[in-house]
Amino acid sequence: MKTTVKSDIEIAQASTMKHIVEIAMKMGLEEDDLELFGKYKAKISNEALTKLKTNESGKIILVTSINPTPAGEGKSTVTVGLGDAFTRIGKKAMIAMREPSLGPTMGIKGGATGGGYSQVLPMEDINLHFTGDLHAITTANNALAALIDNHLQQGNELNIDQRRIVWKRAVDLNDRALRKVIIGLGGPLQGVPREDGFDITVASEIMAVLCLAKDLKDLKLRLSRMVVAYNINKEPVTVADLGVEGALTLLLKEAVKPNLVQTIEHTPALIHGGPFANIAHGCNSVIATIAAAKLADYVITEGGFGADLGAEKFLHIKSRSAGIKPEAVVIVATIRALKMHGGVAKTELEKENISSLILGFANLQKHIETIKSFGLPVVIAINKFITDTDLEVQTLLDWCQKENVAVALTEVWEKGGAGGIELAEKLLSVIEKDENDFHSLYDLSDSIEQKVRTIVQKVYGGKDVEFSPKAKKQLVDFEKFGWSNLAVCMAKSQYSLSDDPTKLGRPTDFIVNVREFKPSIGAGFIVALTGEVMTMPGLPKKPAALNMDVDENGNAVGLF
Amino acid sequence: MKTTVKSDIEIAQASTMKHIVEIAMKMGLEEDDLELFGKYKAKISNEALTKLKTNESGKIILVTSINPTPAGEGKSTVTVGLGDAFTRIGKKAMIAMREPSLGPTMGIKGGATGGGYSQVLPMEDINLHFTGDLHAITTANNALAALIDNHLQQGNELNIDQRRIVWKRAVDLNDRALRKVIIGLGGPLQGVPREDGFDITVASEIMAVLCLAKDLKDLKLRLSRMVVAYNINKEPVTVADLGVEGALTLLLKEAVKPNLVQTIEHTPALIHGGPFANIAHGCNSVIATIAAAKLADYVITEGGFGADLGAEKFLHIKSRSAGIKPEAVVIVATIRALKMHGGVAKTELEKENISSLILGFANLQKHIETIKSFGLPVVIAINKFITDTDLEVQTLLDWCQKENVAVALTEVWEKGGAGGIELAEKLLSVIEKDENDFHSLYDLSDSIEQKVRTIVQKVYGGKDVEFSPKAKKQLVDFEKFGWSNLAVCMAKSQYSLSDDPTKLGRPTDFIVNVREFKPSIGAGFIVALTGEVMTMPGLPKKPAALNMDVDENGNAVGLF
Repeated sequence: MKTTVKSDIEIAQASTMKHIVEIAMKMGLEEDDLELFGKYKAKISNEALTKLKTNESGKIILVTSINPTPAGEGKSTVTVGLGDAFTRIGKKAMIAMREPSLGPTMGIKGGATGGGYSQVLPMEDINLHFTGDLHAITTANNALAALIDNHLQQGNELNIDQRRIVWKRAVDLNDRALRKVIIGLGGPLQGVPREDGFDITVASEIMAVLCLAKDLKDLKLRLSRMVVAYNINKEPVTVADLGVEGALTLLLKEAVKPNLVQTIEHTPALIHGGPFANIAHGCNSVIATIAAAKLADYVITEGGFGADLGAEKFLHIKSRSAGIKPEAVVIVATIRALKMHGGVAKTELEKENISSLILGFANLQKHIETIKSFGLPVVIAINKFITDTDLEVQTLLDWCQKENVAVALTEVWEKGGAGGIELAEKLLSVIEKDENDFHSLYDLSDSIEQKVRTIVQKVYGGKDVEFSPKAKKQLVDFEKFGWSNLAVCMAKSQYSLSDDPTKLGRPTDFIVNVREFKPSIGAGFIVALTGEVMTMPGLPKKPAALNMDVDENGNAVGLF
Repeated sequence: MKTTVKSDIEIAQASTMKHIVEIAMKMGLEEDDLELFGKYKAKISNEALTKLKTNESGKIILVTSINPTPAGEGKSTVTVGLGDAFTRIGKKAMIAMREPSLGPTMGIKGGATGGGYSQVLPMEDINLHFTGDLHAITTANNALAALIDNHLQQGNELNIDQRRIVWKRAVDLNDRALRKVIIGLGGPLQGVPREDGFDITVASEIMAVLCLAKDLKDLKLRLSRMVVAYNINKEPVTVADLGVEGALTLLLKEAVKPNLVQTIEHTPALIHGGPFANIAHGCNSVIATIAAAKLADYVITEGGFGADLGAEKFLHIKSRSAGIKPEAVVIVATIRALKMHGGVAKTELEKENISSLILGFANLQKHIETIKSFGLPVVIAINKFITDTDLEVQTLLDWCQKENVAVALTEVWEKGGAGGIELAEKLLSVIEKDENDFHSLYDLSDSIEQKVRTIVQKVYGGKDVEFSPKAKKQLVDFEKFGWSNLAVCMAKSQYSLSDDPTKLGRPTDFIVNVREFKPSIGAGFIVALTGEVMTMPGLPKKPAALNMDVDENGNAVGLF
């Protein structure tokens, strides 16, 4: 029972890892294919990645969820546990997940590496500096910023309008005081004074670019296309105009290699890249997902937030760009979260409440419809909590049967892979039996307005979209710049199907308001911003940092 | 001959490295003592460092130089070549050097890993992200900054005076536009607006702290003492007051472990830590130097800039703090640089000029006197250039004989270790024969004024020190805060023995002006600032970044 088990870090530190070479060898890799980072982490070499290209591809399973609530869904935990379950039933399985940002770790306790007995290890390392990928991205981001300001300072040959520099600086920290800053003060020798701001590193376009790049060459091409500013004629200025795509690629040449680790049960996992799920697409790198598919027969991967954001972006942006075809989608739900969608307050979640639970099914129902509309088989994973009553669970199981959707109870937090075997078996069954007619809901040749409208109507269940005057004006420019054929990346509240975070369940007849667009030309999408999007979090009054320490043996203390 | 040999990166990439485990085993380490970073880099584990403590200590040789000139001295190259020379003559030798900052790499071509056939490898890695130490320091530096601003934002219990926050942010880049900034703009939810600035990471006090720490425990203690601000009563506010020394130590727990690499000739080298040589002490970490001494019979290490700064700080700050006793000091000089000290312009260096060379000896002479005044044996290394004429070289050799100081010609750039054998043998001879009466030139119990005066008079050969009214006022406060017994760290022009960079050779009768003090309480010294000190470099008009790239195999192109 959850109330008697140990904390995540206690479980993790009590686990015995195998040498990462042993893990890699299970997947057909050799020691020489790895670049070791200690005994339990490794990058896969460029040579090995090239060699893998001729392998057949395994089946990709996407894990997503209902709209997240403060009750928690445990999507990452289910992803890890499902990978272990596949291993337990004798399948060659691999997990592909995002790597966490260090910044939030300093703020609020909690990692991004699963939980309980379904974790990837070494969790302290993964949640701190890991193999340095995020540091490399921060460095490349800020090197570009320094090169832009140096260009201004050294004569501004490109006629950059200093009021229209859109490239911001980045730190992998929660630092609200850096959201809006003025730089270049102190006189003519210290640069050109201008407004600027810092995003958290995972919000850098470089993170999105790295995660969508197929290889080093594609990475460089995407970097070269990134728009950093507009000139005095309001035309875009790119990294290629500055001539520094080679330098940025050089800074990222190690970060672009996927990182191999293992779960508590020794299932191999590639943890690589972690773009924001609002202003970016929220999935781990294409390189990691494809490498996992070349190594394993079953790849379990996830998207950020709920199916309206994470799955939609995985299917429309990542899959299209990388040529990936998922075999099935898991939608994770909890009784607690469904009750919240049915109107129960967080403080009342412990009590049985069948009528609210039934009301909450509407949220799940919409996501099932959406995944099916993409032509994909679906399995619901009920991530069981100790407070769920038998009647509540049975009510959900009955509803799923009535809806004709496969469902499995999972207890991966408590039981590791053993708690996910039913889910794994249901997946094998739907992959075998159900039709898979995977297709996009929009064409890239649709207008940007139409692409946004399609997502709002078909994925969110909304009535229509309203574009602000500014957004409309931007679309005219985008047409001129040749950007109309790019994908759309929605930046919307994760809590609701609508753009109003207070509308839980399954709102209808709503209008989504697009305030502004943000072009991410390197990544290859136009971000549609609805409402305010926070790209630099702050720290709470009592940051988690206050409890952190290192013991006399150099081990992390108080991290989670 | 230099004119026909390949570039540094060509030589480096044409070299065959041995697996780092093989290098480590030569020194008595086992694979399990290492944390591998690929095949050619490793950190030494905490357990191994603890185990080494019972080993006998080898002999430490410090490499320093005359005051640097634009002609170049090649101190790092001599350090590497000397290590190889010791290996060639059958000694168990190891090199301990600073790790380079990434920032300057983007600006002006040129690495910090030696040159020609005396380089440490893999030079591309070492000059870029290496094992992530500098990124960890940047992160710890900026996490502390974010925690300070969050403290202001969340009620400011410590009554920090926002005008007197002395902790700056850091990036490991040359970014002049970040020298002076205003942060916290955008209204009450975005923090408290205030003036701030960014230093390059190597100027962070955390770098100095990491380099002087004996172990993880000492690191934490030093971090806790760092002064970040003053409160409304003008009393210091420390990291301990904020309660985040544990979190900072956690962020640095890997960075504090020394990095093992190899030279082209496979001599092991620990490359670890690289504090500024002006506002900090400019030497690699104490942990690396001591580990090297426990592993090898001869350790070759260096200090930053010339002997007036680098050696003085090595001997007064690092040696005292760590209990290190060097056996001998090498002073590197070149004919070219001595001619510049004698008044020759950079454009005229190719021409033989005996009279100017003789004038330039005065600079070398002062450094010899200084090292001898510390009670240490000296050997002069003449780092030979192809343009040096036989008469010039003979004139210098004759002068050394007259001065009764050991001297050796080195050709390590062209010939690797073979070019340093004479120097190694001279060192063995002076270590055996010469008296070693190593002692400090000042006592920590001397007043801060007296400590500064001692350095100015005994090391620089100046007449006296003038303290500004501000500096004098600061000393009154320091007395009150209990900081008077700390070491002094001089921030002075590296180009001259005086604080006027235009006074080459051996100026006399000069007064050094101390403008201000900067307390580095975690590091354990008070920085005495003479003149302006640049702690954030800028980029040139045509930054080296413009030439950088990655080839199709993922190798660095155009880095050097």
